[in-house]
Amino acid sequence: MTPPPAHGPAGLVTDGPADLLVTGCTALTHGPDGEISFVEDAAVVVRDGVVVAVTGTAAVAGLAAAERIDGSGTVALPGLVNCHTHAPMAALRGIADDVPADEWFNDWIWPIESELTERAVELGARLACAEMIRGGVTTFADHYFAMDTVAAVIEETGLRAVLGQAYFSSQGPEGRAASLDFALRRRGTAGGRITTCLAPHAPYTVDEDDLAATAELAREHGLLVHTHAAESRAQTDNSLARYGRTPIEILERAGLLEGDLLIAHATGLDAARDLPVLRRATGRVAVATAPRTYLKFAWDTTPVRALRDIGIPVGLATDGAASNNTLDVWESMTLTALLQKYVERDPAWLTGRQALHHATLQSARAVGLGERVGSLAAGRRADLVLVDLTGPHTQPVHDLAATLVHSARSSDVRTTIVDGRVLMRDRQLLTVDVPAVVRELAELLPALVDRNHGKRIQKYEA
Amino acid sequence: MTPPPAHGPAGLVTDGPADLLVTGCTALTHGPDGEISFVEDAAVVVRDGVVVAVTGTAAVAGLAAAERIDGSGTVALPGLVNCHTHAPMAALRGIADDVPADEWFNDWIWPIESELTERAVELGARLACAEMIRGGVTTFADHYFAMDTVAAVIEETGLRAVLGQAYFSSQGPEGRAASLDFALRRRGTAGGRITTCLAPHAPYTVDEDDLAATAELAREHGLLVHTHAAESRAQTDNSLARYGRTPIEILERAGLLEGDLLIAHATGLDAARDLPVLRRATGRVAVATAPRTYLKFAWDTTPVRALRDIGIPVGLATDGAASNNTLDVWESMTLTALLQKYVERDPAWLTGRQALHHATLQSARAVGLGERVGSLAAGRRADLVLVDLTGPHTQPVHDLAATLVHSARSSDVRTTIVDGRVLMRDRQLLTVDVPAVVRELAELLPALVDRNHGKRIQKYEA
Repeated sequence: MTPPPAHGPAGLVTDGPADLLVTGCTALTHGPDGEISFVEDAAVVVRDGVVVAVTGTAAVAGLAAAERIDGSGTVALPGLVNCHTHAPMAALRGIADDVPADEWFNDWIWPIESELTERAVELGARLACAEMIRGGVTTFADHYFAMDTVAAVIEETGLRAVLGQAYFSSQGPEGRAASLDFALRRRGTAGGRITTCLAPHAPYTVDEDDLAATAELAREHGLLVHTHAAESRAQTDNSLARYGRTPIEILERAGLLEGDLLIAHATGLDAARDLPVLRRATGRVAVATAPRTYLKFAWDTTPVRALRDIGIPVGLATDGAASNNTLDVWESMTLTALLQKYVERDPAWLTGRQALHHATLQSARAVGLGERVGSLAAGRRADLVLVDLTGPHTQPVHDLAATLVHSARSSDVRTTIVDGRVLMRDRQLLTVDVPAVVRELAELLPALVDRNHGKRIQKYEA
Repeated sequence: MTPPPAHGPAGLVTDGPADLLVTGCTALTHGPDGEISFVEDAAVVVRDGVVVAVTGTAAVAGLAAAERIDGSGTVALPGLVNCHTHAPMAALRGIADDVPADEWFNDWIWPIESELTERAVELGARLACAEMIRGGVTTFADHYFAMDTVAAVIEETGLRAVLGQAYFSSQGPEGRAASLDFALRRRGTAGGRITTCLAPHAPYTVDEDDLAATAELAREHGLLVHTHAAESRAQTDNSLARYGRTPIEILERAGLLEGDLLIAHATGLDAARDLPVLRRATGRVAVATAPRTYLKFAWDTTPVRALRDIGIPVGLATDGAASNNTLDVWESMTLTALLQKYVERDPAWLTGRQALHHATLQSARAVGLGERVGSLAAGRRADLVLVDLTGPHTQPVHDLAATLVHSARSSDVRTTIVDGRVLMRDRQLLTVDVPAVVRELAELLPALVDRNHGKRIQKYEA
């Protein structure tokens, strides 16, 4: 614990009443090299959706504020970032468990997605937003279909999102064009809470010409590209057999490593071939890891340590609820810490503080928002959560990082704030009516999961 | 889903008013071969601490009851069983993270335990009970010191427990004698909620003569023996190097496999040597698995599939909070499902229903209570929990087993009942004052964690 420094330019705190003032919490802050420290009895001052200062509670005595939150007994963290999900798939949570990935795709998900309706996307996305707000997620990177519908849900729920309209080469050039059209129309909307990207599905469903054209469009329009690659070792082996190149080598050849690129999963990296390729990337390349999904599919996990050694940030993710069953980024943080120790056979690797670094700065960088969110600091967007540590399962506190990563869980998030707006207060959601969503979704489900039509949006033979 | 059968002898339901009546829930029940099914719109009728019937809500219309609980939106499960923990170590939660097991023992836990006070044991145990009640645990098997103090906490908190006073051979025969004395004095106390066992620490701290004498005492007094064995592969290798026998072979030679035996961990089994030994055990032998602890120490996990193949039940556990950071048996269930898929490289192995089987019947059997708890059925003790599935993270429900194992979490337990007594209602603890425990514990902590005395209860060189 360190004494409370004044993180914001002091003058600004007294520039007039705050819009939101959180007092009495312990605040997680980052030092100049990203090192994590905890400021006790801290205050967070918010004005115009931005953090004005993280300072001591005593320093804001007498400051007027339109809205006040007593943060006693809580830790204030930067809101969590879900670096890779398919929010609307919350509607398919638990539909195909205990099956291998090829069966999951071919017998369940891709048949169902061939008849997906906008209404199902809307309700699934709304349910996902409710779950994420309750779990302390303030930003998510979504890669799916009917993204205008998802964007509308973002407008309404108040979350921040990085949205990309997915496409396959089987759609022809129209798929890529629609993804670009979406990205250009929607970027900066929802009061700036929506950023956008191009979203080719994966190197096994999008051909090299299409990927190269995507890289060119991304460069031209300054867009992030978000794609799946090397999801499993089997995909890498099949790619080598089919093309003589790994999925990562295909991305490189297409020019995608020269721009901003978010790679989902990368559990199937070929260390000898792929690490040198990623090391020489000239763009801002990052990986999103969703460890629960990998365990469920009995896949390897993302090689976090090898990626750190070559300077690639690894952000936390949940994938969609149809594979991951939760959109619980807190759980991803915990599982990343646990599983990395296990696979590296090193209990001292991936400490609590390292896990928190992945959950904050690295995740924000991964989705292209490294300058705007991911840290509680003056000038950043006011995306934060208050985590209640008064429960018996989080007491006593010998080491706060350990408590957060290994004892606390997403249900301990008491309050979730995006752009200074409270989306959940004391566990009460303020922008989503969950019972209504659940009721309407129940009516749609029989049609949604009916696979008698015999169609399939793709065939998985990666 | 199956139509609601009347599980209890129908006559009993109308024998007069119920003490407790839960209506409108979905109830998890077991068929004759232990197969799991879910009864919709179910009622659980409790009288004198025992389940009289699990039947349809309609069948109990008009039945008088001293206490009623509306179970709408919840699933009623048998209360969870924590098959191996050290409850008082909740006081040391998170004290030594990110370190290997030998450092954890030698530099932290065993120095601290050499100066343990009864007051610290009492407060730690009370905190642990609060956490477990909130997490849906109704029974735990505890293996620790100062167990009279833990027994007193059981009296007061209302939980069920299987208690054993731990001993090392370094204590001389007095250690074993004290364990026996405790077991005989305390068994059947707390209104029958306390059962007891003999608790030799492990084959690397209790010598063969001591173990053989323990086996003899267990036989003479009809007691379960609860011990650690083959906690890690390193222990097995060291045991082979030192004695020419694995820890399991040592247990066999001591005669412990001829009686009721609960083995904690067994992650370091030597498949070729130990599985045949366990297969020919004539006693009721079971294993407790605490997967979170193994991940943290970068150990292998319990070979659940191999144990199933030879008929050894595997119960769920958390170990103590000093290694595991939580006493969350729900998390152990989820992690067992996930990690077993991964280590067996089989996504179809350890299905949701299998995980629920471990959490119910197998866990109850593991702690020697297979006839009394672990299933919602007429004649069993009324130990049950109501799990709220209305949250966005548990909706929609396509497959209830998947929802319970992979989407729900311990914080969804709304109500916890032991022997028909409500210990938590709507998340409110009724038998533990958590703020008081936390406050008093905070005062003790500086002395508790001071290691300047230079003492150590044991040296870990297993």
